[in-house]
Amino acid sequence: MNRAIINLDRSSLDKIHSHSLEILAEVGIRFPYEKALTLFKKHGFKVDGSIVHFDGNDISKALKTVPAAFTLEARNPSRNLRIGENDYVMAPGYGPPFIIESTGQKRNATMADVNSFCKLVQNSKCLDFNSSIVVQPNDVPSETAHLDILLATLILTDKPMMGSSASALAARDSLKMAEMIWGNLDRPVMLSLIDSLSPLQYAVESLEALMVFAEAGQPMIIHSACSLGSTGPITIAGSLVISNATTLAGICLAQLINPGTPLVYGLGGSPTDMRKGAYVNASPEDAKHVAISSAMGRYYQMPCRGQGALTESFCLDYQAGMESAIMLTVAALSGVHVGLHNCGTYGSMLAMSYEKFIADEDLCGALKKLMKPIELTDDAFAMDLIKDLGTSGNYLMQPHTLERCRDEFFIPDLGIRTLHNSWLEMEHRNIAARARQLVDERLACYRKPDIDLSLVNDLTAYVAVRKK
Amino acid sequence: MNRAIINLDRSSLDKIHSHSLEILAEVGIRFPYEKALTLFKKHGFKVDGSIVHFDGNDISKALKTVPAAFTLEARNPSRNLRIGENDYVMAPGYGPPFIIESTGQKRNATMADVNSFCKLVQNSKCLDFNSSIVVQPNDVPSETAHLDILLATLILTDKPMMGSSASALAARDSLKMAEMIWGNLDRPVMLSLIDSLSPLQYAVESLEALMVFAEAGQPMIIHSACSLGSTGPITIAGSLVISNATTLAGICLAQLINPGTPLVYGLGGSPTDMRKGAYVNASPEDAKHVAISSAMGRYYQMPCRGQGALTESFCLDYQAGMESAIMLTVAALSGVHVGLHNCGTYGSMLAMSYEKFIADEDLCGALKKLMKPIELTDDAFAMDLIKDLGTSGNYLMQPHTLERCRDEFFIPDLGIRTLHNSWLEMEHRNIAARARQLVDERLACYRKPDIDLSLVNDLTAYVAVRKK
Repeated sequence: MNRAIINLDRSSLDKIHSHSLEILAEVGIRFPYEKALTLFKKHGFKVDGSIVHFDGNDISKALKTVPAAFTLEARNPSRNLRIGENDYVMAPGYGPPFIIESTGQKRNATMADVNSFCKLVQNSKCLDFNSSIVVQPNDVPSETAHLDILLATLILTDKPMMGSSASALAARDSLKMAEMIWGNLDRPVMLSLIDSLSPLQYAVESLEALMVFAEAGQPMIIHSACSLGSTGPITIAGSLVISNATTLAGICLAQLINPGTPLVYGLGGSPTDMRKGAYVNASPEDAKHVAISSAMGRYYQMPCRGQGALTESFCLDYQAGMESAIMLTVAALSGVHVGLHNCGTYGSMLAMSYEKFIADEDLCGALKKLMKPIELTDDAFAMDLIKDLGTSGNYLMQPHTLERCRDEFFIPDLGIRTLHNSWLEMEHRNIAARARQLVDERLACYRKPDIDLSLVNDLTAYVAVRKK
Repeated sequence: MNRAIINLDRSSLDKIHSHSLEILAEVGIRFPYEKALTLFKKHGFKVDGSIVHFDGNDISKALKTVPAAFTLEARNPSRNLRIGENDYVMAPGYGPPFIIESTGQKRNATMADVNSFCKLVQNSKCLDFNSSIVVQPNDVPSETAHLDILLATLILTDKPMMGSSASALAARDSLKMAEMIWGNLDRPVMLSLIDSLSPLQYAVESLEALMVFAEAGQPMIIHSACSLGSTGPITIAGSLVISNATTLAGICLAQLINPGTPLVYGLGGSPTDMRKGAYVNASPEDAKHVAISSAMGRYYQMPCRGQGALTESFCLDYQAGMESAIMLTVAALSGVHVGLHNCGTYGSMLAMSYEKFIADEDLCGALKKLMKPIELTDDAFAMDLIKDLGTSGNYLMQPHTLERCRDEFFIPDLGIRTLHNSWLEMEHRNIAARARQLVDERLACYRKPDIDLSLVNDLTAYVAVRKK
């Protein structure tokens, strides 16, 4: 199957765009970072205090230099990724500070968890890159945690990775460690996430990281989201305007610094729970933002990001499966290019779960199969066989069936396909118990990817010096 | 959001169509029913034994008289449905003989279950029509079970319904009882399901029912499916050819009998489990067939049917939620018009579950919200409010938020949206226990829709006489 297009018509997208430009011009975006303000002034932008105003030409000029697609290199070149064309590339959870165990209890995440998730990402059949900060560890100092995480990521996995955008320092550390692997960073080797704040502003740390990565020409996801009815308008139309305006302003800053820096368009939004004032993940409104952000990405001829396998649930129940699957199926069919949080998150991104990670892998694998174009070759049509067997045949023992039977179908690792009686007799009818078994098996069979010993020493020494 | 289109290109659809015509001409379709064969002969078709051959003109002539859309009337006119335009109308499970309890144990379904499911359909916020045979009851004689089911359906619900296609007699009973309600059946009041057999044939009972309903001009879903690698080719391309050919032949028969009879296009296919020889529901290949059948329906300018919230699971776990949600999200985004099995089925359609019914309602409701077009009015864009609040505002207490906060968002009935601590303290952390509570509440608050007492007497008397 080819990818599906959400047919939000061009005139609706034009309207969202022109309303965003109106806000960019009249209200502007808050950039509370002197270095950014200086740059905007240098380029002749109207700046009031920390508010920067943009006109339509600024934005269209910036959009012109954003590449429609780019290659993200991995430490192992066979794992390089093309971002912005047909594929939907997937990474696991990004940043939760907790682990929820299958008992339902919550605990702080540690470096041991960072290591374990790196191993699961490395031998995952469906994850294409490492979000690097799969969890935020609590047992190392927070100012230097990014160094420990980057070290683990670079040594334990050889898939493409994400940098740390916690601060200018963290971004520079990311680049310095990447230089040890790739030497000259003249092509994309590290994708980083820049989140804005709502309404209509950026935090200083994000701006620091944005400027460091843009100077280095390293790709970023520029993402804006609001909580409908609290940090943004309650309506999707209003949410689109403020988040699109904010993302466009970030895109503009990155392109002013270094025209041609590869960027990924990101926009989200989900309801505020009116009783608790909290952001509700994985709502249909959230899924709708995913579909629209992919339409906006195409409108701007940029790769786009979708939300991941999110849920409000805290266990492997129907709700977790349903919410995660709606979110990812919409992303898959609407043409999203990059997925974060695609494996392992629980409870509004509060926590990671090993068992949910395994369950979400079944989901990601199923969707990758769903998105694969249908084979329409003569051999696939099998007209001679159909004519031979007519109305009375059984295809089971035919050579055409036997030749293909090992690879034709998607087979889940966790999901069951069994008779009711056999299910009743299973040792583990509980899906979480089966998932735990698979986690243990996967960690036991993990093999560290090849890496030059001197490189390991250099990386380790850099981290040791920086942590002093 | 408008609906998404699976962009299977026209030339691929042309290829599937022309290959289907080749099979229809060279192999033909088996119609083991004299009355059908006589009709085909009368219209000059080539008939060999029970095999009927079709040429391209026969098929295109038939397709020309199938309406692109039609209205299905309900006993309560405010519940009439338009089938084939923008809406995706939904019915619950159709026909499983068992109930799976939340303990996991299986039992036979009874008339009490038929009644209970009718009540749940009637007060469902998201189900648009009643599949009527939600379960196949085991405590009444099978030859007359359709009478008991139709009686329950007509009295306990006033949503549009399905007829029984178990035999010519069952179809005639369906029409006679409908006549008591609607009088002259000169417009669609009852949608019935005609399933073919694979490969390339129909069962005699299905043909009987097809002919009775077509003579009455009552709408039918003509559905063909195969088990990839056993009752059909292992490849999706091959499956499409045989199932499309079989469905086209059924469409042709209905249009020969009564040109203009409203029909819904149906086509499915899912892998054979090679170890057990069993059909596997809710695979990504199954979901792919849903998307393609919707593209084929558009190609033939007919309404189309999708598979429902299917799963291989037997309990309310992640797998049940994930598989059900992939199936229905693909149906929703690819433009399916009619969904059967959208609430309540477990284990490859082996059984219905009350708890799963409630869980699937959350899914159906979320998808209906997802499909709703985005409101792009001036009030929704809220530009003045956005300009007023600028970068420092909180939208929570604004009149624009307060005016809309009760209706703007989808709120699940079963799914939780709570903090982790509150969840740990919940009486029922188990989703099945919460679902059971909702089932009991829903059955307790059920109100029988108004119906004329003399009508109830007539229907009851008809069933009593027929059962003698």
